[in-house]
Amino acid sequence: MRKIISAIGLLAFLTLSAQQNVHLKSPGQSPVIGDDGKVTFNLHAPGAKRVQLAGHLPGQPIEMTQQEGNWTASIEGLEPDIYDYWFEIDSVRTMDPSNPYVVRDVAYLSNIFVVTDNGYSPYLTNNVPHGKVEKVWYRSDKLGGDRRMSIYTPPGYDGKTGKYPVLYLLHGMGGDEEAWQDLGRTVQMLDNLIATGQAEPMIVVMPNGNALLQAAPGFSTMGLYTPEGNQSVDPDRSFEAAFPEIVAFVEDNYLVDPSKSKNAIAGLSMGGGHAWKISMMMPDKFDYVGMFSPAIWWDGRGVPVDMNHPEVVPMLERQFQSAPQFYWIAIGNEDFLYDLNAHYRNLLDSHGFPYEYYESEGGHTWVNWRHYLLKFLPRLFKTD
Amino acid sequence: MRKIISAIGLLAFLTLSAQQNVHLKSPGQSPVIGDDGKVTFNLHAPGAKRVQLAGHLPGQPIEMTQQEGNWTASIEGLEPDIYDYWFEIDSVRTMDPSNPYVVRDVAYLSNIFVVTDNGYSPYLTNNVPHGKVEKVWYRSDKLGGDRRMSIYTPPGYDGKTGKYPVLYLLHGMGGDEEAWQDLGRTVQMLDNLIATGQAEPMIVVMPNGNALLQAAPGFSTMGLYTPEGNQSVDPDRSFEAAFPEIVAFVEDNYLVDPSKSKNAIAGLSMGGGHAWKISMMMPDKFDYVGMFSPAIWWDGRGVPVDMNHPEVVPMLERQFQSAPQFYWIAIGNEDFLYDLNAHYRNLLDSHGFPYEYYESEGGHTWVNWRHYLLKFLPRLFKTD
Repeated sequence: MRKIISAIGLLAFLTLSAQQNVHLKSPGQSPVIGDDGKVTFNLHAPGAKRVQLAGHLPGQPIEMTQQEGNWTASIEGLEPDIYDYWFEIDSVRTMDPSNPYVVRDVAYLSNIFVVTDNGYSPYLTNNVPHGKVEKVWYRSDKLGGDRRMSIYTPPGYDGKTGKYPVLYLLHGMGGDEEAWQDLGRTVQMLDNLIATGQAEPMIVVMPNGNALLQAAPGFSTMGLYTPEGNQSVDPDRSFEAAFPEIVAFVEDNYLVDPSKSKNAIAGLSMGGGHAWKISMMMPDKFDYVGMFSPAIWWDGRGVPVDMNHPEVVPMLERQFQSAPQFYWIAIGNEDFLYDLNAHYRNLLDSHGFPYEYYESEGGHTWVNWRHYLLKFLPRLFKTD
Repeated sequence: MRKIISAIGLLAFLTLSAQQNVHLKSPGQSPVIGDDGKVTFNLHAPGAKRVQLAGHLPGQPIEMTQQEGNWTASIEGLEPDIYDYWFEIDSVRTMDPSNPYVVRDVAYLSNIFVVTDNGYSPYLTNNVPHGKVEKVWYRSDKLGGDRRMSIYTPPGYDGKTGKYPVLYLLHGMGGDEEAWQDLGRTVQMLDNLIATGQAEPMIVVMPNGNALLQAAPGFSTMGLYTPEGNQSVDPDRSFEAAFPEIVAFVEDNYLVDPSKSKNAIAGLSMGGGHAWKISMMMPDKFDYVGMFSPAIWWDGRGVPVDMNHPEVVPMLERQFQSAPQFYWIAIGNEDFLYDLNAHYRNLLDSHGFPYEYYESEGGHTWVNWRHYLLKFLPRLFKTD
């Protein structure tokens, strides 16, 4: 077998002649982000006939133009945010070979870049105290096996002193226990908001919400398979029914305040539905409930909840006997779940259950879910 | 701005019509791994003129052949191991769009796949008890700032009872605190070896060995820059000189046995050089020293250590007054550091310092470093 020296080997090899400092020649610069929000994408592809820039970008797909095999495209005036994109080279979806930063959504990779606000982004690591992230396994008897989970503990948490509030943060269909970190930038957000006093120091628990999967793709006994986002809908083996096991694990192993005023649950899409259901099933547990583009259905996917639903309404009545401090629905005006949520708000209105509602631009996107979390976190645990 | 619904949104959307189970159509199957070690790569690229398969594969680069825009190539008889590869489509280095599993080495991404031995690989998650991985930040006064580090604690570690042996595991130039996990598969290896009793339950500490960098690319205040693998060689601000801060942090925050018989240090390439130096600088600390393809130089990169070096030899004499239980050099017969290491073995021989030596096939590769770690771990902490 022919062995190639790895990039690390190559570096060391270059070093032998270059002495002090060594640069592994980078594969080019792309994207180049200007101070004015102008972003330029570059690709050397002399053999390509057509290259398009695609992703969550205005005006996409964008035709790239070439000169001597160097393809380029620019976008002006991007607002500070995270953007994802990829190249379509002669119709093949590819990563930008100059950008090593990628995120995975189900089976698809995208490159990402960040436009900052004069150098600052809540989604990037800043020079502030940093919390710790743990990848732990817990036992679920209900779901039958060990399951993987991500847990953020804030700066100063030492496992010995204090009692911390806790947020359970749930992903959507196709996501996993990595999604809120990789796509959602939760860790950076928490560090940044806690440092400026905008959010309380809290523990954030990010489990895997797929009842049939024990861990994110690549971390389970399924090996390096191609994820497809299957979901169990067996109500007897549901994530929601097994959720108390997660709470018990967290309360046994971390210094958390178990009282309602110090417990929050939130999620996006399917996870928003989970937060909705779990907060009803544990009516004395959560004073803070966040539903981001939530999949509010009970009897079947896509079916709105009947205004006098014989199971849901009594559960809500029980939950709202002592109403949550903050019961929040956030959704984009182009979200395909918009009507479903409008229907559910009618239900809440008709029964007089109090809630807050936030409507943004856009649809069912991580851009929105990150924005919602940025708005949600400062509202938590401020009432005592 | 036009918003596209994300893959997660798409899944939920499909679900509205598909009811119970939903499959997001996967982007195709590649690679397809047969039971016999035959691996087939597939790519739909009707516009491409030439596609090559490249990476750590026998006979690479391999020309792929096409029929109606479907390109394919097969490799027979691959041994159980991890392999990395990419496609060169009309000379553009791209990821396999059907394979969401990638690793990053400096600024370059590669796809990976695993050939198992009848379903088993020490590099994959198996149905065994799992340890915990933590991403922590510690303060370095010597290097001036907070720095990120990965720490593995074994199954059963609860932070309350027991005293565990500890291995400090160091990466090479261009690597970071993620390298031994992502490229090295350390967590899976530890879980698997501990489960079968081949390795003792231990804590594994994986710091960032680049004195000038506080964290892996994307996790530091440098944002999403293009990594180039620069290295500081300022001896007053070296990783080695600052290493006792890491030991102090670990011994303050984890239940570790600080005695020599329960402490090990190992590293690859630059990290092998770090392990070599640090074990000399802390001569009473490490009973186990592992040097994988080590960069054994003192006065300048690439310069062999003089047989009677006025600084090194006295330090080694001090270290070998009470010789480490296991002082191990492992290198491939094609490694570009082979001669440097042969020279160093002569030095050890001429002074009568005892060591063990392992020579493998191949060069300066992660294939080898994973193999070395698999051989090294079972030798640790067995003497008491």
